[in-house]
Amino acid sequence: MLRVGIIGGTGYTGGELLRLLSLHPKAEIVVVTSRKQAGKPIDTAHPNLKGLVDLCFEDVNPSQIAEKCDVVFTAVPHGAAMAVVPELLGGGTRVIDLSADYRLPVEIFEKVYGKKHEDPRENMYGLPEIHPEVRDAMLVGNPGCFPTGAILAAAPLVAAGVVERAVFDSKTGISGAGQDPSPVTHYPNVAENVNPYNLTRHRHRAEIEQELKAFDESVKTSFTPHIVPSTRGILTTAHIFVNQELTSDEVSAIYEEFYNGKYFVRMNKPSLAAVRGSNFCDIAFEIDQGTDRIVVVSAIDNMVKGASGQAIQNMNIMFGLDERTGLWTGGLSP
Amino acid sequence: MLRVGIIGGTGYTGGELLRLLSLHPKAEIVVVTSRKQAGKPIDTAHPNLKGLVDLCFEDVNPSQIAEKCDVVFTAVPHGAAMAVVPELLGGGTRVIDLSADYRLPVEIFEKVYGKKHEDPRENMYGLPEIHPEVRDAMLVGNPGCFPTGAILAAAPLVAAGVVERAVFDSKTGISGAGQDPSPVTHYPNVAENVNPYNLTRHRHRAEIEQELKAFDESVKTSFTPHIVPSTRGILTTAHIFVNQELTSDEVSAIYEEFYNGKYFVRMNKPSLAAVRGSNFCDIAFEIDQGTDRIVVVSAIDNMVKGASGQAIQNMNIMFGLDERTGLWTGGLSP
Amino acid sequence: MLRVGIIGGTGYTGGELLRLLSLHPKAEIVVVTSRKQAGKPIDTAHPNLKGLVDLCFEDVNPSQIAEKCDVVFTAVPHGAAMAVVPELLGGGTRVIDLSADYRLPVEIFEKVYGKKHEDPRENMYGLPEIHPEVRDAMLVGNPGCFPTGAILAAAPLVAAGVVERAVFDSKTGISGAGQDPSPVTHYPNVAENVNPYNLTRHRHRAEIEQELKAFDESVKTSFTPHIVPSTRGILTTAHIFVNQELTSDEVSAIYEEFYNGKYFVRMNKPSLAAVRGSNFCDIAFEIDQGTDRIVVVSAIDNMVKGASGQAIQNMNIMFGLDERTGLWTGGLSP
Amino acid sequence: MLRVGIIGGTGYTGGELLRLLSLHPKAEIVVVTSRKQAGKPIDTAHPNLKGLVDLCFEDVNPSQIAEKCDVVFTAVPHGAAMAVVPELLGGGTRVIDLSADYRLPVEIFEKVYGKKHEDPRENMYGLPEIHPEVRDAMLVGNPGCFPTGAILAAAPLVAAGVVERAVFDSKTGISGAGQDPSPVTHYPNVAENVNPYNLTRHRHRAEIEQELKAFDESVKTSFTPHIVPSTRGILTTAHIFVNQELTSDEVSAIYEEFYNGKYFVRMNKPSLAAVRGSNFCDIAFEIDQGTDRIVVVSAIDNMVKGASGQAIQNMNIMFGLDERTGLWTGGLSP
Repeated sequence: MLRVGIIGGTGYTGGELLRLLSLHPKAEIVVVTSRKQAGKPIDTAHPNLKGLVDLCFEDVNPSQIAEKCDVVFTAVPHGAAMAVVPELLGGGTRVIDLSADYRLPVEIFEKVYGKKHEDPRENMYGLPEIHPEVRDAMLVGNPGCFPTGAILAAAPLVAAGVVERAVFDSKTGISGAGQDPSPVTHYPNVAENVNPYNLTRHRHRAEIEQELKAFDESVKTSFTPHIVPSTRGILTTAHIFVNQELTSDEVSAIYEEFYNGKYFVRMNKPSLAAVRGSNFCDIAFEIDQGTDRIVVVSAIDNMVKGASGQAIQNMNIMFGLDERTGLWTGGLSP
Repeated sequence: MLRVGIIGGTGYTGGELLRLLSLHPKAEIVVVTSRKQAGKPIDTAHPNLKGLVDLCFEDVNPSQIAEKCDVVFTAVPHGAAMAVVPELLGGGTRVIDLSADYRLPVEIFEKVYGKKHEDPRENMYGLPEIHPEVRDAMLVGNPGCFPTGAILAAAPLVAAGVVERAVFDSKTGISGAGQDPSPVTHYPNVAENVNPYNLTRHRHRAEIEQELKAFDESVKTSFTPHIVPSTRGILTTAHIFVNQELTSDEVSAIYEEFYNGKYFVRMNKPSLAAVRGSNFCDIAFEIDQGTDRIVVVSAIDNMVKGASGQAIQNMNIMFGLDERTGLWTGGLSP
Repeated sequence: MLRVGIIGGTGYTGGELLRLLSLHPKAEIVVVTSRKQAGKPIDTAHPNLKGLVDLCFEDVNPSQIAEKCDVVFTAVPHGAAMAVVPELLGGGTRVIDLSADYRLPVEIFEKVYGKKHEDPRENMYGLPEIHPEVRDAMLVGNPGCFPTGAILAAAPLVAAGVVERAVFDSKTGISGAGQDPSPVTHYPNVAENVNPYNLTRHRHRAEIEQELKAFDESVKTSFTPHIVPSTRGILTTAHIFVNQELTSDEVSAIYEEFYNGKYFVRMNKPSLAAVRGSNFCDIAFEIDQGTDRIVVVSAIDNMVKGASGQAIQNMNIMFGLDERTGLWTGGLSP
Repeated sequence: MLRVGIIGGTGYTGGELLRLLSLHPKAEIVVVTSRKQAGKPIDTAHPNLKGLVDLCFEDVNPSQIAEKCDVVFTAVPHGAAMAVVPELLGGGTRVIDLSADYRLPVEIFEKVYGKKHEDPRENMYGLPEIHPEVRDAMLVGNPGCFPTGAILAAAPLVAAGVVERAVFDSKTGISGAGQDPSPVTHYPNVAENVNPYNLTRHRHRAEIEQELKAFDESVKTSFTPHIVPSTRGILTTAHIFVNQELTSDEVSAIYEEFYNGKYFVRMNKPSLAAVRGSNFCDIAFEIDQGTDRIVVVSAIDNMVKGASGQAIQNMNIMFGLDERTGLWTGGLSP
């Protein structure tokens, strides 16, 4: 059994790690931290897990955690992970960080997030369909939710060298904003509404560019996110402008080859319902006949494939398990 | 491995049986029927299960199914189950019927559903927290969704002999209306709305009365359902009028004793989120000080504890498995 | 033209007063206060009103407002109205208070709200269908949202002397919780959920009892509110237990006589959609044959008939206008 | 008083015409047709209008309608308007058609809608901010909902000659699909979901191209619609690629000049709430610094500015009224 720790267990990604790990046959949760709720049973923060997870939150330091664990998930705000990761790694445990701290090269991180990086080291971008080398990493930077959906939608075509420009228009459920109430998450502001935000400057854009330009330096990318009335899920519409005419069969072949053996990517009509609560990324496309545009659509659950599920997928790979272990469940539909 | 068949696999309860059974370590789905979709892969009707269930729908007759299966779930409309159940039982398989056909004594069924029963036999009401004798049944009538939530909320107090009157005011998600579109399920009619219906005469009332009056013949019951803007879930508010003063501790003790060892009933603040996709029934209560009223609230997922999950719980019990097998998952919250 | 002032113009009830008054042919908004947003255009807080209301918020004291206005709406939190109302009345203006400060007799107010009343005077409960004497009042306590729906549903039967017990089970949209974000209003906690709260002890119960017991001192009342996934609207299900058998025609006659000439109460299938944005209260009922129960259902928009619309209806009556002036609009359906 | 007729009064656009015209001080509804509901009161189809519109549906022929009316709205399916419009016009009445029959040149209509046009005549595209010449028209083709939002978002920049490519990604409420239930409108398929459809080939694209290419023949346009969980509203995100660098002030000036005196277009942060139930189109933009992209966002209520409200705006203009008459109401927010 893998001994697993979670730093920051009260939030949405922490809760989702707990929910998923409670189903994992090869992992045992041994410590879950929370400063504010230390001593309280985990089900006071996550009543859905009553009866399933019988631990209490603890307030312990990273080196104590490192001793007890084979792997630690850091589910803390951006900037907070870098304060604990060195000590965890120093204690010999492997780390999967769900914050943005280790996704980007240090100089890009500092520019995008506007703060100095206190633990500069090489980034390891944990999108396992594209970076199987996570297998050997001690530290993985788990991807952002928007980049996961956007990169998986466009990567096959970009890697094929046929893309000039990719315009990503993403629609996300509100859980990506976390569990702290704010005007952005206030029900009357979300329901029956669509809220575009950061129209041109969302921080996740750097991850998208990093990964797609690694395939083709010349590709131009744009990204605009919107909040839609849903708790979970991201549907990304990629308006892709290509430099040559492609048939539908050719595009299908490109995707099938690229994702051959990647269990969690399905060529399947995208809908938030079909992936809800699951680790799948569903993708479909349509060619805009007579023009240079292909519309590719992807759907993920932002809290699973876009966060905690992908983190566990990385854990499985890092420890030589089948990547599906504990994650092979269908979406909760309807 | 239990060999399992599903008659009627394209609807919501059929889909939910498939989703849950795909996670069950001791059951193997061997046949799933659909007349209309025979020959098509199951994921054409249930895209969420693509990659998880690799069968096609079949159009085969009950006796063929009985041969292949240890147990068959009939997920068909009211009145249709009685047309196949005799042949299934005759073939030696055990049957869990998700329709209303075998929940009530024949004479009550005929009165409530306004049709002649073609397969009169003794009913076996499959609410396992109350009827552990499902263990030995060849045929179980799986309870209705509203009755499951209502009965579990009130049974301990009724069994304690303290209840004069129980007024059940239930709020259900729309999936209970099935997957066929109608004005009742039309998004603009459901969203941002509350739709009371069958204010005094819902057919599920007969199940509620049957089970509660078995504890105390003198109890008076009323039931009014409402549709709220949710896909899944039923929250039932039971306004219970008692014949004696009770303290909160006394009521707690009554519930804890009644549900001792019943894993799927939790004394837990009820919310549709905490039980979503899971087989739990969460219950809480509050005493209206200085009056004769106790308000008890229960929450279930109508498609799981209110239908397919409870059916699998019955299967587990009927075949000597731990009742939690394949069902021990937390709610998908948020 | 009536000169109208609003104290507290940035919240939901203030915004709704502004929206409705901008359509009123006989009223002119002359001052709208806000301490925090003083100097800013009203459409910074209410972008829906851009182009329609061209004032700025002001920070002025009550006596200055009284000078300019024929009538002032106080749309402030409970406890804050009593701090400004004496000065407004002293300045000769009439006042419609949307807080709870003047709805109850002082001794009841102090008990229910747990604070001393700083401006004790006789309450004038501004439910105009029941209290036409608001016509002559200098100060009106505008009713709470839940009481409006509950009282209008039950009053005719209670006044007819046939009711033993009325159990009100109310389902409200979340806007009743105001525009300040909190866990209660957090989208992931509200959507696809039902949240019962204050199961037995909501403060609005005092208003319901006050009004119904004025018709029949012996009537027993209970009240349990729930939050449903909607921004606006309250649907109240009144489970009414009667002391004699009544036919449907008899009940119809009781309601039609009671509400004869009351334009805003319609015998109309209740739905939040049909009253959305309007000042109507729609009511229907069904007799539970063979029992002592009648189920009566009412629907209102909590922000209009349950707050700002009813306040303007009171204004119309107080100033001798047709009560429909500026309010005679159909619900925004769907 | 303008005497107004409505052909097809039972659907969503018919209902919205009735709701809005009931507020119009210069128009009187004299006839509303429905074949199926002839003889029934209008509030049986539209309970929100009970007490406000006291007519019955009639089944009368176009020439009878023409006699009674100064103007007739045809709120019928595509292809059905052309069967009645010639007779209406022959009877001397003016016509505003809410179907697609008169929006496009005949040859384009026949290609896009795949049917022969039975009443070929010159189209008059009734987007009044762009075509003030509706003033003199006997027949106006009222624009589609998506084109209204898309064209108003992009027209100023296209007219300025600076646009190379405009990619419209639209998010619509489901009411655009009408009031007939279907899998597309089934609550469990819509709620907590995003449904892209007609990814590259929606019929409204022809209207968008027609109007934008009239300003600049060289502009390239793409259009992809999505259904989001909302009843009303369309938010359109226009990813606009320009051929020169523009400052934010320059773009502001372009929009302000273009929409100078156009009351229903506001430069206002777009949100479906702020325009709900109103005839406004709210627009904002952001320049993607250092790239060739400007993101422009517009919001309308698809049933008002995208259909019935715009039709009444056209009526006002055609009959020399202030275009705001009966339409000058703020959005129902929240």
